[in-house]
Amino acid sequence: MKYGVIGYKGKMGRLITKLFNEKGHTSVLYVDKNSIKQTDIPEIIIDFSSKDALPHTIELCIKNSANLVIGTTGLSNEDISSLKDLSKKVAILQSYNFSFGINIIVEILEKFKTLFSDWDCEIFEIHHSEKKDKPSGTAFMLEKAINRKINITSARIGGIPGDHTILFANQGELISISHRAISREVFALGALKASEWLLSKKKGYYTFKDVIKEGLK
Amino acid sequence: MKYGVIGYKGKMGRLITKLFNEKGHTSVLYVDKNSIKQTDIPEIIIDFSSKDALPHTIELCIKNSANLVIGTTGLSNEDISSLKDLSKKVAILQSYNFSFGINIIVEILEKFKTLFSDWDCEIFEIHHSEKKDKPSGTAFMLEKAINRKINITSARIGGIPGDHTILFANQGELISISHRAISREVFALGALKASEWLLSKKKGYYTFKDVIKEGLK
Amino acid sequence: MKYGVIGYKGKMGRLITKLFNEKGHTSVLYVDKNSIKQTDIPEIIIDFSSKDALPHTIELCIKNSANLVIGTTGLSNEDISSLKDLSKKVAILQSYNFSFGINIIVEILEKFKTLFSDWDCEIFEIHHSEKKDKPSGTAFMLEKAINRKINITSARIGGIPGDHTILFANQGELISISHRAISREVFALGALKASEWLLSKKKGYYTFKDVIKEGLK
Amino acid sequence: MKYGVIGYKGKMGRLITKLFNEKGHTSVLYVDKNSIKQTDIPEIIIDFSSKDALPHTIELCIKNSANLVIGTTGLSNEDISSLKDLSKKVAILQSYNFSFGINIIVEILEKFKTLFSDWDCEIFEIHHSEKKDKPSGTAFMLEKAINRKINITSARIGGIPGDHTILFANQGELISISHRAISREVFALGALKASEWLLSKKKGYYTFKDVIKEGLK
Repeated sequence: MKYGVIGYKGKMGRLITKLFNEKGHTSVLYVDKNSIKQTDIPEIIIDFSSKDALPHTIELCIKNSANLVIGTTGLSNEDISSLKDLSKKVAILQSYNFSFGINIIVEILEKFKTLFSDWDCEIFEIHHSEKKDKPSGTAFMLEKAINRKINITSARIGGIPGDHTILFANQGELISISHRAISREVFALGALKASEWLLSKKKGYYTFKDVIKEGLK
Repeated sequence: MKYGVIGYKGKMGRLITKLFNEKGHTSVLYVDKNSIKQTDIPEIIIDFSSKDALPHTIELCIKNSANLVIGTTGLSNEDISSLKDLSKKVAILQSYNFSFGINIIVEILEKFKTLFSDWDCEIFEIHHSEKKDKPSGTAFMLEKAINRKINITSARIGGIPGDHTILFANQGELISISHRAISREVFALGALKASEWLLSKKKGYYTFKDVIKEGLK
Repeated sequence: MKYGVIGYKGKMGRLITKLFNEKGHTSVLYVDKNSIKQTDIPEIIIDFSSKDALPHTIELCIKNSANLVIGTTGLSNEDISSLKDLSKKVAILQSYNFSFGINIIVEILEKFKTLFSDWDCEIFEIHHSEKKDKPSGTAFMLEKAINRKINITSARIGGIPGDHTILFANQGELISISHRAISREVFALGALKASEWLLSKKKGYYTFKDVIKEGLK
Repeated sequence: MKYGVIGYKGKMGRLITKLFNEKGHTSVLYVDKNSIKQTDIPEIIIDFSSKDALPHTIELCIKNSANLVIGTTGLSNEDISSLKDLSKKVAILQSYNFSFGINIIVEILEKFKTLFSDWDCEIFEIHHSEKKDKPSGTAFMLEKAINRKINITSARIGGIPGDHTILFANQGELISISHRAISREVFALGALKASEWLLSKKKGYYTFKDVIKEGLK
């Protein structure tokens, strides 16, 4: 596919460009705070930059009739509204977490939570010592998927990119479901999957959940 | 419920009796190789003894119009045939593994295997040093659920009752799903769940899978 | 060896008798609240019962010139004093935790703590849902061995006999040292090791640490 | 300290430069296949490049009276001889594995192996799917430290930089000691530790083991 990257000089932007090109896709639009370079019409635009970039990103999607994969965090209700408007013209996939694995686990928990309703449950997560929030947003996502009040314990040590473990136990057995982010590349991979999935969509507002669901059929 | 236990003096028989009574159920039929004691009509008969006991067990089910939960291993095709015949008169639940957790994991793997089709996979299992078979039958069940050829590694060390781990990895992330049997009580718990589930059934041949599936609705 | 068991009808007493006899040792003295049976002179007396039994246990050690392995918890200073007095006549081994593995880990942590002084550390422990104290006494033992303030997180779920994990992490790597109690038998095994070790001692007051240390030479 | 890097444009060279500079050390010598840049006299030269570079590296050490930290793999006996000769003039620290954690674990295993002599043991290691050797060299290092024949199982999945787990089990308990490399930065950190340790040495041939041992005093 032909794609564009917003924030192509940033950490995520560079990871995305590297991975997409390795997979045979072609970068035709590079946008950064102070620069824009375009060589062809992108089918998809990918934005993992910051909410400030959003208005320009929306403009570029309309101008190029390009679908949008957006992983920007901290979007306001107004931002979401703008995206919903845009989704009447192009297809949008928005999520706060593009790790494929975490989204699969969320789906597993939602589908199987009733089977675990009489098991004790605990969530344990580990992140690098510089991570400020505790518990992690992902831990709350997991708790929400299980749909009951769960004790979450957190460790902030060393350089761990992100481990999440859900423990289910009864008197006779223990099940643990664990996810380890090996590196930030995981999120670039998620963006790639999302882009490939979104490519054939005409318009509409999607989340990473829809990617998982289609894979389940 | 009123229940009967075949092999009530054996390891599993004693665990079952202890657990069922704790949960408020009433033992009304005790059978062992050389003894039989009956105080009332059982609604369910539970048999985790040996295949030799099967003809007598079937006879008792017919006589008492009792449903049957059977966890006996090593049944022959003939044995299964006899059970199928019996299932026209009463409800039967048969499985080679009554661990609720393992059966949930099998169900998860079957439902989500397509999402993991482009992930590397490995199964690792640990059992006590006296376990003869390697890999374990449960490891093969897990491989079958994922429905592709998987490398299985096994350790036989100390007194581990049974650990099974399925690892899924791609370039950016690692998911592990682990099951630990804490003790044999896990199988008694599975028999209890199965019995409670089977109580309301009229007739038919079921497996532990059906218990899980109903819980999923 | 010829040995005696205080509280031979209790959970630990029965486990100890079973294990010691399997290993070829001979039980010659059985003591319980209301009964005493003696067939020969014991070389070692093992007491994992309750502090109330202590005066009688001491009396029996003196009478038989038997060494003492004592795992009773909640001893008062006065109790310890009585044991110190006894240790002038026979050899005593006293500990609050007879798990060989935990005592090895404590020894590892004490010996290697300086190498980990610039690593982040976290202790995570899991016990069954009925365990009242949180964190566990063993978690505090581990923290004391590392000799700095450590964040301890605890889960109380299902029937877990006892898992303890120490995590050390820096920017580039993660080390975890984990201990899992498979069953209470672990403590009977510790009592066996302690008894075999204590057999050749004439008198003195020892702890499980001394058993480990001698094994290290 | 003032230091020089051989292969400064390579993956390890860049990681080393980045880390050392962050810690306040000053790079004064940059060497690569086709270029050399020197601004001052280095106290230490660090070489994680290739064995082809060795003669030039040795020459530079002599010329600058600089100590040498060398992590180059696949050295021949002749190469080692050259390094031994050099070690009569400057201090050298050579190792095939600069992960501090793995070297600590090796030390723990050597010191405590006798205590585990009657435990079952198993080594399990996971690396990325492109790693050719199986088991890993590090797994053999661990086996050698325990000093008995151990079953090693290996998984090659996804992008795992390197996990190593040693399991010790008896009838009642399971101890696992695990190491996870989070990223290649771990080896740069090891080089930093080694350099700081080597700085005060006059001459002699050392290995990473000596760094660990001194930390233990």
